[in-house]
Amino acid sequence: MSGPALTHIDSAGEASMVDVGDKAETVRVAVAEGFVRMKPETLALIRQGNAKKGDVIATARLAGIMAAKQTSSLIPLCHPLMLTKVSVDITPDDALPGLRVEAMAKLTGRTGVEMEALTAVSVACLTIYDMAKAADREMEIGGVRLVSKSGGRSGDYHRAGEMR
Amino acid sequence: MSGPALTHIDSAGEASMVDVGDKAETVRVAVAEGFVRMKPETLALIRQGNAKKGDVIATARLAGIMAAKQTSSLIPLCHPLMLTKVSVDITPDDALPGLRVEAMAKLTGRTGVEMEALTAVSVACLTIYDMAKAADREMEIGGVRLVSKSGGRSGDYHRAGEMR
Amino acid sequence: MSGPALTHIDSAGEASMVDVGDKAETVRVAVAEGFVRMKPETLALIRQGNAKKGDVIATARLAGIMAAKQTSSLIPLCHPLMLTKVSVDITPDDALPGLRVEAMAKLTGRTGVEMEALTAVSVACLTIYDMAKAADREMEIGGVRLVSKSGGRSGDYHRAGEMR
Amino acid sequence: MSGPALTHIDSAGEASMVDVGDKAETVRVAVAEGFVRMKPETLALIRQGNAKKGDVIATARLAGIMAAKQTSSLIPLCHPLMLTKVSVDITPDDALPGLRVEAMAKLTGRTGVEMEALTAVSVACLTIYDMAKAADREMEIGGVRLVSKSGGRSGDYHRAGEMR
Amino acid sequence: MSGPALTHIDSAGEASMVDVGDKAETVRVAVAEGFVRMKPETLALIRQGNAKKGDVIATARLAGIMAAKQTSSLIPLCHPLMLTKVSVDITPDDALPGLRVEAMAKLTGRTGVEMEALTAVSVACLTIYDMAKAADREMEIGGVRLVSKSGGRSGDYHRAGEMR
Amino acid sequence: MSGPALTHIDSAGEASMVDVGDKAETVRVAVAEGFVRMKPETLALIRQGNAKKGDVIATARLAGIMAAKQTSSLIPLCHPLMLTKVSVDITPDDALPGLRVEAMAKLTGRTGVEMEALTAVSVACLTIYDMAKAADREMEIGGVRLVSKSGGRSGDYHRAGEMR
Repeated sequence: MSGPALTHIDSAGEASMVDVGDKAETVRVAVAEGFVRMKPETLALIRQGNAKKGDVIATARLAGIMAAKQTSSLIPLCHPLMLTKVSVDITPDDALPGLRVEAMAKLTGRTGVEMEALTAVSVACLTIYDMAKAADREMEIGGVRLVSKSGGRSGDYHRAGEMR
Repeated sequence: MSGPALTHIDSAGEASMVDVGDKAETVRVAVAEGFVRMKPETLALIRQGNAKKGDVIATARLAGIMAAKQTSSLIPLCHPLMLTKVSVDITPDDALPGLRVEAMAKLTGRTGVEMEALTAVSVACLTIYDMAKAADREMEIGGVRLVSKSGGRSGDYHRAGEMR
Repeated sequence: MSGPALTHIDSAGEASMVDVGDKAETVRVAVAEGFVRMKPETLALIRQGNAKKGDVIATARLAGIMAAKQTSSLIPLCHPLMLTKVSVDITPDDALPGLRVEAMAKLTGRTGVEMEALTAVSVACLTIYDMAKAADREMEIGGVRLVSKSGGRSGDYHRAGEMR
Repeated sequence: MSGPALTHIDSAGEASMVDVGDKAETVRVAVAEGFVRMKPETLALIRQGNAKKGDVIATARLAGIMAAKQTSSLIPLCHPLMLTKVSVDITPDDALPGLRVEAMAKLTGRTGVEMEALTAVSVACLTIYDMAKAADREMEIGGVRLVSKSGGRSGDYHRAGEMR
Repeated sequence: MSGPALTHIDSAGEASMVDVGDKAETVRVAVAEGFVRMKPETLALIRQGNAKKGDVIATARLAGIMAAKQTSSLIPLCHPLMLTKVSVDITPDDALPGLRVEAMAKLTGRTGVEMEALTAVSVACLTIYDMAKAADREMEIGGVRLVSKSGGRSGDYHRAGEMR
Repeated sequence: MSGPALTHIDSAGEASMVDVGDKAETVRVAVAEGFVRMKPETLALIRQGNAKKGDVIATARLAGIMAAKQTSSLIPLCHPLMLTKVSVDITPDDALPGLRVEAMAKLTGRTGVEMEALTAVSVACLTIYDMAKAADREMEIGGVRLVSKSGGRSGDYHRAGEMR
């Protein structure tokens, strides 16, 4: 086939894990982002909690870090891998209004770590939702996407433009 | 405190699991939705695969169902519970363009199942991203939110309006 | 449709979890069996170990019990459930030659526990294979099947005949 | 001791993980097979489903792939490892009658991957059983064994003869 | 046998899960405690961190809560169960010197929740150790024990005396 | 900062995984210890069981080995890693009275394995508690600490003195 193809679909059209055994071991980094949009009052409640103990944000950050380590259990065709670093940053944004989440995953290995960064963002967002849902059922998780990636055969990538 | 509060934050401001032991056992259902927006060519590739074997969509649907069962392992303050039913539907949408995901979770128990439905949607979306990422790095997961919930003390809920 | 159908395939032909919310809570018991066939010398080695410390058999029995508790994580459309009892018995059989494994799973709930019993048998057999594989690569796991089940709407069942 | 011994039993007769730290990192591949024997009518039902959506087979294949990644959690003395590739093939066999399952696991590392391939086969078979059990309680999983292995100090292996 | 016996050892002396199917569903609560003893300087470092962001203590508390939910995966003969509440409190103690951990687990069910409370304490202590180990390798986890339990056939229990 | 610091707390005071990508791959070994103190009668019961089948000790040893492999799932900021060896030894001590547990973890990699050894000890102790708790609610887990570690930039370490 000319042009890009779906690498997880083999020649018979069946789902399978891509063989990464021949890829080189390089340092690979991926950054992903996302947000939870909420009512201004909900953001205010979280900020107040944050002023005191920071627990919604601290809990979501940890949940994101821990989830990154479970990526290969959650995403059927992801390879198990040994992350050397995961970080999750969560910042309030009054203009959204809501919380913005950014995650970074890093390893020295044979496969990219986009899915680990995206999984960290998604689970951090779900955790924010869980902790604030008694106050606001209308929250929405969005803008979950890759910001940048480096390392690996396919070259570096940096997303153009900005998060809506 | 008057007005809604963050139930997962106790009086000392610390994160904790809400005690659901006194809640009634009722049938609880939650429906959540989300989407993966992609290039039209990527959607076409998935549709072609789908015409043959349906594997991107079938894989993402299973990943969502299986993830719903892991919700209490992923979201720190969620209760373990015994889902009686989970379903995930994924449909192509040329106007998006991309795939729309809807998940339903159900149980007879003491806690709501919003998080299970939202987790199913999120992991199904991540799986779609994983399987198509070689063709399209610009995909974005969005619109992840609760559509409806029934059962439980807080009353039934149905979201007004539509998914963007 | 007349006659038996595949309950995990819905009307659109897609895999989904069966809704068990309307089933009655009853005591449900399932017994499954299987074997690992091996060279007589391998069985002798395990017996010798067993005479001393019993570790191949004790390890496989525990692995089977623990695996029964992971059934809903392993089998995509199985419901999570709260087993009240699991037991695994492993006995040498010179006529096979090899080890015979029998597992029992029990709960008070809405779904049958065949898969839990069968998973316990399978993982106990895999563990036996793992612990003896350095001595015998020709081992074979077979005869994994349901022996009996009771409780639930579909009535009691007891397999006719014997394990080969 | 002369002749083969049980490597997982240490000198005191107690179960333990073998130290693989001194083994060389080589490309290791293992292939395993197994089958689910069923009534001809059950196979026909699965084939019909397959003709439409392929879901019994697609679900079992994914379950097998995902289970291979959980091998070290299930089998007590297996080492955690980073598979570079897992594939599972499932083919109907009217002569059995039933479905034949073959799994391949691959990594660049210090331990063999037989257990990963065998676990993939076993869980794929259990998933087939689960999805068809409403139609046929008499199904039997059998013939689960190693077909071939390469890489590692103990040399390559290819099983003589055929699956019964 | 007269007097207390080991309930997890069956009549043949083999490990097995106790059948709890006949036990009544009652509200069961267990409280456990433990500590991490450390150098005064290490405690001071944690306190300083705590003054700013509270992260060692917040992280350990969440790890304890999440671990309680994994108890039946970790302890071979524990039953899976649906906790309705878990809480973990961690308080600095200059006299120790170190941190004291107390955990409470609660459910409406057929089995006690001592192991869930003890697992929460242990993993919270391990997390404290992990986060402070770069500053102090001499830390020691101790005093991990049951404080009280209520509900269930064996009657309520409250430990006499105090933690050393 | 001069002197030791908390490596898991970043410059903003937030919990994060330390980046180990730049550390060298070396052979790393850690040994940890702990004990379960119990009534003399409880120890006698375990010894009697041990004389027959050894199951309390064998079960706890396996639980410890298996738990070491789950360390990065349990401890939020631990890195996933590929242990090449884990062993757990459990010995009765009449002077305690109780059981002493020692665990060793080993890998060729970029991070130390103290947490894996300490987790193995803790879960082995919890398993002993679980299996004997019907006979003795007063048991106490203590003395859980690092005995020695080797490999890695921070140099070898051997604890001075003895376990109380």
